[in-house]
Amino acid sequence: MFNSFGNIFRLTSFGESHGRGIGGVIDGFPSGIAIDESFVQSELDRRRPGQSILTTARKEPDKVEFLSGIFEGKSTGAPIGFIVWNQNQHSSDYENLKGVYRPSHADYTYTVKYGIRDHRGGGRSSARETISRVVGGALAKLALRQLGIDIKAYTSQVGGIKLEGNYTDYDLDLIETNDVRCPDPLKAKEMADLIKQVKGEGDTIGGTLTCVIKGCPIGLGQPVFGKLHAALGGAMLSINAAKAFEYGEGFHGLKMRGSEQNDVFYNNHGRIETHTNHSGGIQGGISNGEDIYFRVVFKPIATLLMEQETVNIDGVDTTLKARGRHDACVLPRAVPIVEAMAAMVILDYYLLDKMTQL
Amino acid sequence: MFNSFGNIFRLTSFGESHGRGIGGVIDGFPSGIAIDESFVQSELDRRRPGQSILTTARKEPDKVEFLSGIFEGKSTGAPIGFIVWNQNQHSSDYENLKGVYRPSHADYTYTVKYGIRDHRGGGRSSARETISRVVGGALAKLALRQLGIDIKAYTSQVGGIKLEGNYTDYDLDLIETNDVRCPDPLKAKEMADLIKQVKGEGDTIGGTLTCVIKGCPIGLGQPVFGKLHAALGGAMLSINAAKAFEYGEGFHGLKMRGSEQNDVFYNNHGRIETHTNHSGGIQGGISNGEDIYFRVVFKPIATLLMEQETVNIDGVDTTLKARGRHDACVLPRAVPIVEAMAAMVILDYYLLDKMTQL
Amino acid sequence: MFNSFGNIFRLTSFGESHGRGIGGVIDGFPSGIAIDESFVQSELDRRRPGQSILTTARKEPDKVEFLSGIFEGKSTGAPIGFIVWNQNQHSSDYENLKGVYRPSHADYTYTVKYGIRDHRGGGRSSARETISRVVGGALAKLALRQLGIDIKAYTSQVGGIKLEGNYTDYDLDLIETNDVRCPDPLKAKEMADLIKQVKGEGDTIGGTLTCVIKGCPIGLGQPVFGKLHAALGGAMLSINAAKAFEYGEGFHGLKMRGSEQNDVFYNNHGRIETHTNHSGGIQGGISNGEDIYFRVVFKPIATLLMEQETVNIDGVDTTLKARGRHDACVLPRAVPIVEAMAAMVILDYYLLDKMTQL
Amino acid sequence: MFNSFGNIFRLTSFGESHGRGIGGVIDGFPSGIAIDESFVQSELDRRRPGQSILTTARKEPDKVEFLSGIFEGKSTGAPIGFIVWNQNQHSSDYENLKGVYRPSHADYTYTVKYGIRDHRGGGRSSARETISRVVGGALAKLALRQLGIDIKAYTSQVGGIKLEGNYTDYDLDLIETNDVRCPDPLKAKEMADLIKQVKGEGDTIGGTLTCVIKGCPIGLGQPVFGKLHAALGGAMLSINAAKAFEYGEGFHGLKMRGSEQNDVFYNNHGRIETHTNHSGGIQGGISNGEDIYFRVVFKPIATLLMEQETVNIDGVDTTLKARGRHDACVLPRAVPIVEAMAAMVILDYYLLDKMTQL
Repeated sequence: MFNSFGNIFRLTSFGESHGRGIGGVIDGFPSGIAIDESFVQSELDRRRPGQSILTTARKEPDKVEFLSGIFEGKSTGAPIGFIVWNQNQHSSDYENLKGVYRPSHADYTYTVKYGIRDHRGGGRSSARETISRVVGGALAKLALRQLGIDIKAYTSQVGGIKLEGNYTDYDLDLIETNDVRCPDPLKAKEMADLIKQVKGEGDTIGGTLTCVIKGCPIGLGQPVFGKLHAALGGAMLSINAAKAFEYGEGFHGLKMRGSEQNDVFYNNHGRIETHTNHSGGIQGGISNGEDIYFRVVFKPIATLLMEQETVNIDGVDTTLKARGRHDACVLPRAVPIVEAMAAMVILDYYLLDKMTQL
Repeated sequence: MFNSFGNIFRLTSFGESHGRGIGGVIDGFPSGIAIDESFVQSELDRRRPGQSILTTARKEPDKVEFLSGIFEGKSTGAPIGFIVWNQNQHSSDYENLKGVYRPSHADYTYTVKYGIRDHRGGGRSSARETISRVVGGALAKLALRQLGIDIKAYTSQVGGIKLEGNYTDYDLDLIETNDVRCPDPLKAKEMADLIKQVKGEGDTIGGTLTCVIKGCPIGLGQPVFGKLHAALGGAMLSINAAKAFEYGEGFHGLKMRGSEQNDVFYNNHGRIETHTNHSGGIQGGISNGEDIYFRVVFKPIATLLMEQETVNIDGVDTTLKARGRHDACVLPRAVPIVEAMAAMVILDYYLLDKMTQL
Repeated sequence: MFNSFGNIFRLTSFGESHGRGIGGVIDGFPSGIAIDESFVQSELDRRRPGQSILTTARKEPDKVEFLSGIFEGKSTGAPIGFIVWNQNQHSSDYENLKGVYRPSHADYTYTVKYGIRDHRGGGRSSARETISRVVGGALAKLALRQLGIDIKAYTSQVGGIKLEGNYTDYDLDLIETNDVRCPDPLKAKEMADLIKQVKGEGDTIGGTLTCVIKGCPIGLGQPVFGKLHAALGGAMLSINAAKAFEYGEGFHGLKMRGSEQNDVFYNNHGRIETHTNHSGGIQGGISNGEDIYFRVVFKPIATLLMEQETVNIDGVDTTLKARGRHDACVLPRAVPIVEAMAAMVILDYYLLDKMTQL
Repeated sequence: MFNSFGNIFRLTSFGESHGRGIGGVIDGFPSGIAIDESFVQSELDRRRPGQSILTTARKEPDKVEFLSGIFEGKSTGAPIGFIVWNQNQHSSDYENLKGVYRPSHADYTYTVKYGIRDHRGGGRSSARETISRVVGGALAKLALRQLGIDIKAYTSQVGGIKLEGNYTDYDLDLIETNDVRCPDPLKAKEMADLIKQVKGEGDTIGGTLTCVIKGCPIGLGQPVFGKLHAALGGAMLSINAAKAFEYGEGFHGLKMRGSEQNDVFYNNHGRIETHTNHSGGIQGGISNGEDIYFRVVFKPIATLLMEQETVNIDGVDTTLKARGRHDACVLPRAVPIVEAMAAMVILDYYLLDKMTQL
């Protein structure tokens, strides 16, 4: 039951890094939505390995193939199956990892839990699984677009290099103009240089993403356990390498008193709005019509191209050094994944909200 | 469907701040567990208003009454219904709030979403709902105790006053020796003074909690959308006023490279362990047998005893000043709530893990 | 997870026959619905023991007490908690049953499954649990009434005494004019006589109920696993003592060929209808706007006031004879229960259908 | 959410009759089970069109292709994706149906519900979807085999030709010796002749299946809404053309009094058993260790090779006559489908039962 995501709109994902492919089934997608397959592919292209010098050199076309649920270009309300075939897996790169547990990877925990492990490329624990999320998210975006809802994420920090401003300080149209996906071109350059340097050392580095949702209707979110930010937080933390989530002022709010952090209401020409948006567009777990924004922290990728201590599957101390093609920083490719998860949550909660009143 | 929490172990909650009471139903609780009702009550007492000078003066005995599912002192596997009757609600304190939307509260979003609002004490959006969570968590703790799993949370920051060390630097047995629930008595005193000062000003202040789970078996967590930390994060973010969640190194890891943050394995006399625990006891979304630890950020409570601008339900600009009895800082009372949510997640995932192999 | 019923509209039930009471939580109920508590009570009165000479003499007022989710007479969208306190339980009647397994009851299977058993009145396995269903169903009916949907069930067979006609042959307004709840007064009399005779012999007897849903909109039902009749069937079979379910022609259709059983469409003054309704108002798992009708078979109640062989909890062969107050035929009191389950399914599916299109 | 089946073991299905193929994802399958792909294929072969003179002439190899979740011949605990590609669809056979609603099919209800319809071969409403069920069921059987649980279904009635005995009167090893899948060779011949005759007339005919589950452990089933027979009934009724479900004595029990229908317990050399099994192996919704048996009624297939009245999509009265290749009786091919659904329910409930006690 844990390879499914969502309540009404629901993505069920399958596939391993070095298996036949990564795919999924999207259930609960509204009927009658025009499916722009080239848009879905363009989202996958933003996640694709080998897209820039900053990412892994694994070359995968990652072409999505839809299997059902679409008729004459429109969703029919039937489940939408899809698959992206694996093509460029180099399982031999992992041959030396068959007998050892990579540090801070899932090798050890999977083995204990399942009693069996597909060691090739991390198997099911590989971030290649996020392909299914990007496809699901792209479809969700197509529906949200009809509702006037727009979602954008960007890299806001890599190691110590950080955007100091809030999202309102940047032109979000600049995000896709550089490989880091950062709306501040100068910082983007610094971040790219840092990633290249770290990569050259065989090491890895983390960072943060900021995500902004504009145009979200008032009323999305369920008030107790299904608060909108709880759903977004749970969704983001399910992405490989995510370590933290904050929304609105988040950690920064620790410096503020209630009188500073409260968002007072006013009547803006007939529409009730707030002067400030410390709440991040969500109050009492329910969207209030202001922009929703949040940040996600990603740790440095655990796969290092340097020697590390570990134990093997017999419990004997040993060392290992990864071979193969790996990212040194997950942030640039995580941008479309964060957007996809956000899009799926928002569409799911939009559909749920339709049932609040008869 | 959103007043239920958990997959197998499942709490369904009901009740409003100024209604008949707060209650719930716990389904999926294992049969044959001895139910120590005095322990459940002692957990509620830790959450109870009026327990110290630092909390709201609302006087509520908050006595739990079990309605089903227990026979001759043991759980039967049938659902456990319970209720805590409201007694000391002062609905008249809220009479002046009937017509206005309190800033950064759920008044406005509830009204838009539901088209109707129980304004008395925040109705369903009140943190008084967390009573049901503490009861659910207390029962979960009784089951976890049999498995040797122990959960402890403490206040690690109030405003700018912060415990600099990690949880391993403190004697967690000191947590309950002061009203703030902080294991550093000197910092606890500073925090208490700050809370009193802020309260005197009619203002409020936020902070962070740290939670530690010891003795968790290896293998809990579902690897993709149901990662253990995603479940914990979603659970914590569903608590009123929570704004952020981080586990393991979290935000702090931004300063570290992969080679510094990885936890290398070694054979500790036959048991595979890690020298460090930057991962926070979870790898690939699955517990690895090390301590699980995380932090939760709470914002300052939105109810201020000072005048604030807002609009009324007709959309006209106005001001309001809360009356009544309110906390100035949620942290001390949030400690048992965070523990309760953690306990429910761990028990639920423990039960789920039983199905991994035939 | 199995004491909850429904997807969006969801009843979670608790309570035992001889415990504190029977209650539940209704989640996902639309906001803004006027809650006519006297109607809910009148539905419970139809289920109440001791209502006529045909039913058990256990005297219970079965007064429902709402605990949350209603404000100024309307549903707020918050979960609706409720309880019916037990008052007239005679646990001593069951003292002699503590050590034996009653034939065709749940005593033995519960004991093996849970390792513990509340033997008093059947504990959780008692049909007294259906109180919670009647309350849930009564609320669902209040919502359905606004949609013009009407649900009526009646006793259509007791032992060998059977209504030969279809529901269209009877005046359903006569159902409540007799204790058996049968729209044919002559047959009702025969059925009542039979029940009394069987009761006098210390024996029990089964029968069938027919249920009709009028005014159901076109489009309810999910086409694959969630077909509307599959949901109705699963719901009915979850009622104590139910043994079979058929809808439309059901078993009778075995005598017909496709050319006889198909319902051909025609244009009835602008509305697409079918001349016949062998399909029972559901095609491809989705309501088609015609009347929905189905039948449920109930077995004779297992509790007999005569001596039966069995084994005791030590596995030793023995005999038992029930004491206490028991129904000889479940049918008359099952009518409101069947209606309640149907109402909950239809409201749930109505809400689900709102999400089909954006 | 309605293209998924099961709680823990969960099949999510996708695909249309004339789309790319029929596939699915099986989640929650225990790890470490040897996957005998040839067994899965042999189950599909039992469902395959064109397997005998009694079935549709559509020629489909229906070869299953596994996409994930299997490593070195064993299940890994990761979701198992699979697909059966469509090859022999003749969409042109349906061109004349594009504009009309076939009687007693889902054409009309789908159109109203979704606002769009894939008319080719019935689209999603086609019984070709049951391929995914057979694959899911075959995997479930592989797991159940390890537990000693065996499931067998057979055709027990076609039109008026009926097996009068109970399942214990037949040698179930004879089921697969004839095209009808009936353990009584003489009756099988009669049934086959009847099907051929009806087919020759362009008409169709219904019947019943009986299914028997042997070796089911005591304790499966959840006592209130998740009774084991309610789950089985809901599962069976979700199969295309199913109209009724009965278990144990079912309808036949109407002729019996409680004293005749009760199954008294006795100690059979240390094992508690019942002399009779009117209960069908389930008491209080929980398996009691006796054989589980039930019957499912299937209506005549709605597609007739004769002219029928109907309306077109503009609501105008018209006639239609199906072309193409169709079964005249669903029973022979429904046998593996019923077994598959039963296997999935039993495995799911087996896994659920593991959580009853800590």
